[in-house]
Amino acid sequence: MTFANVGSLETKPGQRDAVLSILVRPMPGLKEAGCLLYEVGVNDAVPDTVFVCELWESPEAHRASLGLESVQAAIEEAMPLLTGEMGGNQFTVLGSPLH
Amino acid sequence: MTFANVGSLETKPGQRDAVLSILVRPMPGLKEAGCLLYEVGVNDAVPDTVFVCELWESPEAHRASLGLESVQAAIEEAMPLLTGEMGGNQFTVLGSPLH
Repeated sequence: MTFANVGSLETKPGQRDAVLSILVRPMPGLKEAGCLLYEVGVNDAVPDTVFVCELWESPEAHRASLGLESVQAAIEEAMPLLTGEMGGNQFTVLGSPLH
Repeated sequence: MTFANVGSLETKPGQRDAVLSILVRPMPGLKEAGCLLYEVGVNDAVPDTVFVCELWESPEAHRASLGLESVQAAIEEAMPLLTGEMGGNQFTVLGSPLH
């Protein structure tokens, strides 16, 4: 079942765009790992925060993706720019009014 | 620009599945209104809560959709089953490592 991972990452002051540029850079292997959607963005009313909205084929696919070289490189590069404050939710998708 | 609306709706005790069934029912006009994605789901570790993950063509499209008959009917039907406690984030999508 499709697994949703939506969240917010607080960045150190002034580092939002640097983190954003890391997370929107192509991450080879993501699609093959079962990533269905990975949207990254911001809300100017919420400074120093990057938001992500991800859909995966399964929770296992999401977990396994954290072992991908490209994903680990992005995490390693972004980590020093983050405060560690994170929010969000994970859930199993059960349906949609669209289809 | 794509607008993301991700959130959680707390239901009254025992009303999660009733709210879920309302939100996954087809809502005519949603796609035409600019809805790109509308995923609804649950997390058994977070009882009495329904999660949504929505993508829209724009914030205006999202706002206008609240006036759709099908959306208003769903809101009206679900409202008595909700506590009013809601969480989540809205953001502008700026990119994706997938494409």
